[in-house]
Amino acid sequence: MPSEFELIRKYFTRPTKHTRLGVGDDCALVQTTPGMELALSTDMLVSGTHFFPDADPFALGHKVLAVNLSDLAAMGATPRWGLLAMAMPKADEAWVEAFSRGFFSLVDKYNVDVIGGDTTRGPLNFCVQIMGEVPVGAALMRSGAKVGDDIWVSGEIGDAALALAHLQGRVKLTDASLAICLPRLHAPAPRIELGLLLRGLAASCIDISDGLLADLGHILDRSGVSAELWLDALPRSTAIRECPEKALAQNCVLAGGDDYELCFTASANHRAAIEALAEASGTWLTRIGKINSGRGLSVLDTNHQPIEISAIGFDHFKQ
Amino acid sequence: MPSEFELIRKYFTRPTKHTRLGVGDDCALVQTTPGMELALSTDMLVSGTHFFPDADPFALGHKVLAVNLSDLAAMGATPRWGLLAMAMPKADEAWVEAFSRGFFSLVDKYNVDVIGGDTTRGPLNFCVQIMGEVPVGAALMRSGAKVGDDIWVSGEIGDAALALAHLQGRVKLTDASLAICLPRLHAPAPRIELGLLLRGLAASCIDISDGLLADLGHILDRSGVSAELWLDALPRSTAIRECPEKALAQNCVLAGGDDYELCFTASANHRAAIEALAEASGTWLTRIGKINSGRGLSVLDTNHQPIEISAIGFDHFKQ
Repeated sequence: MPSEFELIRKYFTRPTKHTRLGVGDDCALVQTTPGMELALSTDMLVSGTHFFPDADPFALGHKVLAVNLSDLAAMGATPRWGLLAMAMPKADEAWVEAFSRGFFSLVDKYNVDVIGGDTTRGPLNFCVQIMGEVPVGAALMRSGAKVGDDIWVSGEIGDAALALAHLQGRVKLTDASLAICLPRLHAPAPRIELGLLLRGLAASCIDISDGLLADLGHILDRSGVSAELWLDALPRSTAIRECPEKALAQNCVLAGGDDYELCFTASANHRAAIEALAEASGTWLTRIGKINSGRGLSVLDTNHQPIEISAIGFDHFKQ
Repeated sequence: MPSEFELIRKYFTRPTKHTRLGVGDDCALVQTTPGMELALSTDMLVSGTHFFPDADPFALGHKVLAVNLSDLAAMGATPRWGLLAMAMPKADEAWVEAFSRGFFSLVDKYNVDVIGGDTTRGPLNFCVQIMGEVPVGAALMRSGAKVGDDIWVSGEIGDAALALAHLQGRVKLTDASLAICLPRLHAPAPRIELGLLLRGLAASCIDISDGLLADLGHILDRSGVSAELWLDALPRSTAIRECPEKALAQNCVLAGGDDYELCFTASANHRAAIEALAEASGTWLTRIGKINSGRGLSVLDTNHQPIEISAIGFDHFKQ
């Protein structure tokens, strides 16, 4: 069986492009670009909590990096460096090779230098630290929402949660619906390009990892404002629209996590610019509500009446 | 039971001192000091692999950060920022509170800004990413050892491994010996100050986490040189010297991990300066061998004869 050092050398050590010292010393050494600041985030993915123990290793390698890149997208940062720590119950070389290919597929796409990590024995667990750069003062933050802002969301939401519901036997989807939903769960696409385009336009931004209500709620908390969402406006895929369990589908849209779309707010003055950006970049952007004064979050139905919100997003330790 | 967000807010969110945006957004934002480069490292600690499942949470919180700070020490970097990701089987608030106190005891000592993290449900696992700063070009690397260099080690080595052997029932230590060894295992002190003082003096440096032979071996590999170690010169504590199991004690000194002392090489021209540094800083520094040409690592006994090296350090996946 290959040793820890051999595994790292063979599957996780690639030439770096913008790093002074990469894998192989006690620390990596990097220099940030003048005029830029560093955006940093970390996410830990655990077997049984974030993915099924028998998850496909290629898809898992992709997803582990995607969810971290999504945090950079939400700040409008350009991906630069990453570190990967992992615990595995045993060193299964074929599994590690496939995982590594999935991981590096996104590394290559976004020009990330993998500059360090750790490999150890233990229950399956992956922890990535991602670093990007953003011009000083240009980062998109949760705290910038202003009264009167439009609320926007990219793509369609709820698909990943709907796929999970199917896999857990809570709904039975058609093959056509699964073809839409499953890739959203297994191979989410971080909205890096969109985040970069939103610099200077969005007043606040977050990626939807815990569900629309929970994540928009973070923007509201940090900005000290309230919001109304328009239920009919929320962008739904064919899979969501054709789901036989209507309540479940609505729950997925409002509170399903793992979509990794961006939810952002912007002044109404930027509405035309954002619509133009959507068209030019081929990205669906939908206006789904507005920011109001006060506190709280209400979801309005067709008749502009607030609906009962029972699902309030996902909290790992909430009972 | 408190939620994930409440736990983070209550126990892991402290005011930052040199950070533009800390915990609470998708990413943290930091700016590096002009003229400095960033040194980055990550270490993952897993229950059952790196610590006992019933480990004292205060000591564990201390150790989780200590082993990461030790990587900065080995580069001669000043600690600046850290992120902490953790998986826990349940949110036991008293446990988290004690862990947090241990963690922040070192955070405060070394003026680290904790700028992010992740909390999730899963088998107990901690992953820290640590970042320090070092003047451009001044970092101590594994690759700098030169033929003729002295090899030095700080403090005494083998104590942490000896304590572990006692806890695993492989040796029975006296209370006096345990008083020496156990703190070395449970509350290792990262050699941050020493790392900073060695800038400009040490040609290469590593921290001893996997054992002297394995870690010095990394210096030799990266530098393309060989080394001889003098068995009699290796600094041993009273606990090691009085251990009834002589072979075990020697194994601990040569191949025991978890001491987090620094092993470094330096030109013989710097010998007096290093001895002066040791005296001025009250740090034991011992000259334990020298760097030779060629490849390989030999340990010489009193008669200058190479001994058989059966233990070659610790590898998490080696059978």
